[in-house]
Amino acid sequence: MSRALELISEHRCFDGIQRFYKHESEAIGLPMKFSVYLPPQAQQGKVPVLFYLAGLTCTEETFMIKGGAQRFAAQHGIMLVACDTSPRGAGVPGEDEGWDFGTGAGFYLDATHAPWNKHYRMESYVTQELFAIATEDLPGDASRAGIFGHSMGGHGALVLAQRHHGKYRSVSAFAPIAAPTRCPWGHKAFGGYLGEDQQAWKQHDASYLMSQSKQPFPGGILVDQGMADSFLAEQLYPEAFEQACEQAGQALTLRRHEGYDHGYYFISTFMEDHMNFHAKQLKA
Amino acid sequence: MSRALELISEHRCFDGIQRFYKHESEAIGLPMKFSVYLPPQAQQGKVPVLFYLAGLTCTEETFMIKGGAQRFAAQHGIMLVACDTSPRGAGVPGEDEGWDFGTGAGFYLDATHAPWNKHYRMESYVTQELFAIATEDLPGDASRAGIFGHSMGGHGALVLAQRHHGKYRSVSAFAPIAAPTRCPWGHKAFGGYLGEDQQAWKQHDASYLMSQSKQPFPGGILVDQGMADSFLAEQLYPEAFEQACEQAGQALTLRRHEGYDHGYYFISTFMEDHMNFHAKQLKA
Repeated sequence: MSRALELISEHRCFDGIQRFYKHESEAIGLPMKFSVYLPPQAQQGKVPVLFYLAGLTCTEETFMIKGGAQRFAAQHGIMLVACDTSPRGAGVPGEDEGWDFGTGAGFYLDATHAPWNKHYRMESYVTQELFAIATEDLPGDASRAGIFGHSMGGHGALVLAQRHHGKYRSVSAFAPIAAPTRCPWGHKAFGGYLGEDQQAWKQHDASYLMSQSKQPFPGGILVDQGMADSFLAEQLYPEAFEQACEQAGQALTLRRHEGYDHGYYFISTFMEDHMNFHAKQLKA
Repeated sequence: MSRALELISEHRCFDGIQRFYKHESEAIGLPMKFSVYLPPQAQQGKVPVLFYLAGLTCTEETFMIKGGAQRFAAQHGIMLVACDTSPRGAGVPGEDEGWDFGTGAGFYLDATHAPWNKHYRMESYVTQELFAIATEDLPGDASRAGIFGHSMGGHGALVLAQRHHGKYRSVSAFAPIAAPTRCPWGHKAFGGYLGEDQQAWKQHDASYLMSQSKQPFPGGILVDQGMADSFLAEQLYPEAFEQACEQAGQALTLRRHEGYDHGYYFISTFMEDHMNFHAKQLKA
């Protein structure tokens, strides 16, 4: 299998290396870009790897520019990987009409509904292809992988960690879309990508999956939520996830932060805590 | 005098507040935007204030998104202020033709050459108008002000601190254009904004000013330079500034970092050191 990675750029950063790659994705059927931060410790061999999934309209660059995570990745010796938020240039009619569906809004699932199902396969991309690249072609340790994300990417992290149990040892989220079957963003995305079968929707709803879970994450789950987040009431539903965790016996630390909104000024404020949370589990 | 500030947005960040403002600038004669980070300590009264000047093509947003300084500003109780890099919409013919002159490239001087001299007055803007806003309308302490910047903004910081001696107690720079009278960027900017009078150019050259200086900065000057910076050989000339400091008896810490380039992955890596450097002097 050929998995040629084209190095777009690299930048020294906190004594490690920030890289941007492009490759012909098998899962997506189109070229995809992703970014990697290699901590200095990666020069000596395999290191724990933490995948970040970004929110609507973001790219593989957003987290690396705005998140401020490299400082802590270098301290802990953790490799960071961030992907794009959808295929680019899939050519599906209407994919560029809104910012919350189609381009930049792949919702980290494999579409089953035509015409989206040809290229919109972000779940396979993240959990199989990018995971393999990070742990086989790059120095990520497959047995010490974690996942986190923001908003749509927080949904992605909470859902993929559950749907691929055992693959990700640690999971956290910033302001996740925690119950997408209940909110307008989720209805639009799931209706388009999965069609009208509401049973299929549930399999991509973090709160539903958790309510059915028999396999808790032993390290607990960390979720941060700003209380001045303008999407909180209509789109996010952290309380649904909180209730599901309680039902499933899943330890959850859900922190509600007065005055914080939905953006990266919020995320960067609590990035250190998330990095420490993942480091504790990935380096245990 | 009316100095009405229009608040564009605000975001909670590291327990303080990130704000973006717009105002009718008297110095520039056009609307200008700037950003401010208010540390939590600013709720109790005046705090030290640190001005950041960004590089070519940047805006008032760049530093606040990419620099990662707020974490340390909150720890030290320092207010951050960042301005735009030029007037916007001045309507001077040719101002949008290149990225290194005109819009996004004001070089932190007051143009004397028509037609630039009407609006391109960034030195007055930064040292008078924005300084007054930060210390009179906002909680910056005028007696505890510092200045730093990157590339063109590093030039700005090193030059303005010398031309307005006593105004800025601490000064540092990332990869500054340290001898603009010797490099293509400087020739283009100074020729356009100041005309052909080379004596006038010298008054905006950090190395020339330092070579003539009788007033050292007692806390020293900190400069970081990446050795993989693609602009280093042709545009930056840190060795000229180093030599001038030696000549003037000015303590300088010039750190040369192997492998680091010209961008914000470099800047963010050493941001903590710069914030500590300024904090030590501004809080002394």
